[in-house]
Amino acid sequence: MSIVTHTSPPYYAVIFTSIRTDAESYSAIAEHVLEEAKKQKGFLGFESARNEIGISVSYWRDLESIREWKEQTLHKKAQTMAHYFYTHFRVRVCKVEREYGF
Amino acid sequence: MSIVTHTSPPYYAVIFTSIRTDAESYSAIAEHVLEEAKKQKGFLGFESARNEIGISVSYWRDLESIREWKEQTLHKKAQTMAHYFYTHFRVRVCKVEREYGF
Repeated sequence: MSIVTHTSPPYYAVIFTSIRTDAESYSAIAEHVLEEAKKQKGFLGFESARNEIGISVSYWRDLESIREWKEQTLHKKAQTMAHYFYTHFRVRVCKVEREYGF
Repeated sequence: MSIVTHTSPPYYAVIFTSIRTDAESYSAIAEHVLEEAKKQKGFLGFESARNEIGISVSYWRDLESIREWKEQTLHKKAQTMAHYFYTHFRVRVCKVEREYGF
């Protein structure tokens, strides 16, 4: 996992914050879903970290790319399992207006 | 650390992703900076997780609140130490357009 640095605004970020259950199948399925996201049109990058809570951020070219990813078959199946994997989660769709760093 | 759930778009998110150095003073200073952020006008919440990389997201009422926080004295001092604390970091200022979850 490295940080995403090649992006240039404007584009979109989906911030996914969650608290997990102890469902054992989680990691394998999450990895599979991420592999599919990377193939998706408009996918720009992904960052993830977890200790007490999990925060994953995916970056997308536009809202259309996010809509298509939301409807992707494997991703839709994973969404139906949200209550099995998470006790709490929050999805935030954001427009990235400015960025800087080194 | 819990996830932030009481927000309602539109508002702003600052996504801070980083890779740390092994500077020992980091945690004490980071905690102090967060305490100051919580007192700041327009502060709505904070989420943070770290393993390989760190992701911290702070939520703000508007861009003016973010600008004022960027100029706050302790925060400005911490910013001058960025190269001491981080090998890489990225700050993204985003407008939250939509959110959902449970």
